[in-house]
Amino acid sequence: MSRSGSSTVRVRYAETDQMGIAWHGEYLAWFEVGRTDLLRGCGCTYRELEAQGLRLPVIEVQARFLRPALYDDVLEILTRLGSLGGARVSFEYAVHRPGTEGPLATGSTSHAAVDLEGRPRRIPDELRRRLA
Amino acid sequence: MSRSGSSTVRVRYAETDQMGIAWHGEYLAWFEVGRTDLLRGCGCTYRELEAQGLRLPVIEVQARFLRPALYDDVLEILTRLGSLGGARVSFEYAVHRPGTEGPLATGSTSHAAVDLEGRPRRIPDELRRRLA
Amino acid sequence: MSRSGSSTVRVRYAETDQMGIAWHGEYLAWFEVGRTDLLRGCGCTYRELEAQGLRLPVIEVQARFLRPALYDDVLEILTRLGSLGGARVSFEYAVHRPGTEGPLATGSTSHAAVDLEGRPRRIPDELRRRLA
Amino acid sequence: MSRSGSSTVRVRYAETDQMGIAWHGEYLAWFEVGRTDLLRGCGCTYRELEAQGLRLPVIEVQARFLRPALYDDVLEILTRLGSLGGARVSFEYAVHRPGTEGPLATGSTSHAAVDLEGRPRRIPDELRRRLA
Repeated sequence: MSRSGSSTVRVRYAETDQMGIAWHGEYLAWFEVGRTDLLRGCGCTYRELEAQGLRLPVIEVQARFLRPALYDDVLEILTRLGSLGGARVSFEYAVHRPGTEGPLATGSTSHAAVDLEGRPRRIPDELRRRLA
Repeated sequence: MSRSGSSTVRVRYAETDQMGIAWHGEYLAWFEVGRTDLLRGCGCTYRELEAQGLRLPVIEVQARFLRPALYDDVLEILTRLGSLGGARVSFEYAVHRPGTEGPLATGSTSHAAVDLEGRPRRIPDELRRRLA
Repeated sequence: MSRSGSSTVRVRYAETDQMGIAWHGEYLAWFEVGRTDLLRGCGCTYRELEAQGLRLPVIEVQARFLRPALYDDVLEILTRLGSLGGARVSFEYAVHRPGTEGPLATGSTSHAAVDLEGRPRRIPDELRRRLA
Repeated sequence: MSRSGSSTVRVRYAETDQMGIAWHGEYLAWFEVGRTDLLRGCGCTYRELEAQGLRLPVIEVQARFLRPALYDDVLEILTRLGSLGGARVSFEYAVHRPGTEGPLATGSTSHAAVDLEGRPRRIPDELRRRLA
């Protein structure tokens, strides 16, 4: 599996906490930006997938925070496909700050494919083809 | 109009910013807690109103920030009905910290009554009776 | 006063609420992006201002929400200086979605200039010159 | 290690996303509420620890989302000490909704003990005694 993408975010003031760094929970929103962009790069937006009745709720998340991100930092989020099963998909992330060696954070999310009522459904073949 | 209610929140670490105070945007979430509780106190939850096809999106907000709120502070949100029109309703808020004289913040929100497709609709009579 | 700037944000999934639109409080974070970029365009970053001991906490905010913003929408935030006093400054905002006539939202924020201990201080002349 | 605590949160409208459920990242803020309360129950607040120059930034987080939480749900967060090392501490969480069998989510966070400059420091003996 080699699908990957790159996204850029700039740390917002609202995203900092009183430790003077980006609050760790914000990375989950950035990961979301990363997989939104990865899907877009595959030619299918998550917005369209939802309009077609597919949802990919997060069922598991893991993240390691190695170096703090600061207000106004420009960050690069590298996203790649982890695994792709019948009704599951996972993504892996690395958050980098240009000029800083090594990632600020790494993480992964696993997703269940469900319909609008939350019932498991198979990931559509077209999405599978585009991701693989 | 005299409907009013009181809610309590404790400032979360995630809600602080690098100024060392609660980020000003969090007050909008607290105002939301305030009006959710006011409606509950009137015997009708916003959750039920949505289930019945009514939504009350915010169309205007105003807030003044007079004194900072700090991490772990316990805050009291006083909410009262402002005005109640055919398809409009507004609420007023004051955020207090027990032991501190004067509010930390005051504000107001105005809401349009719409259906699930976003079309204007009249505020149901029962809600009107309960609020007034 | 004619200082103005333009910023771009894309609505994140995390920023939506169950009404299916961007939660109204997120606009305050976007306004913050707008004034951060406006200051950068003036040649002085807010990050540097804080490092020099100046803070500009929000003391008042006002916003009107005219049309909903949706997940994955690309938004343009137009920011311009409102007023500039001795220890006060205000900014005005309009959030546009290319292709949609009229702003999705408009707003303003007022800020007090304070030092790191929260005491009022005069806006430095250099910042004043750059903003005016 | 048997230190544990219980916290209550009610899901805010701002915390929902357009899937109609609480956004998964909010659980990290609730976990934070859980450990803030656990520390308080041990007789030492995190606020005081920071005032004494100790910080406990999150260096790793893991969470599993088993059942969705909905707007206005009252949730119980059960927090317990995981491990306690020289300069590391971890907590484990389970989020329950009274009336629903099994947790909505489980998770854990690991923390490094650092001083105000971000340098590793030993967890103070008093905190260690209270936690153990």
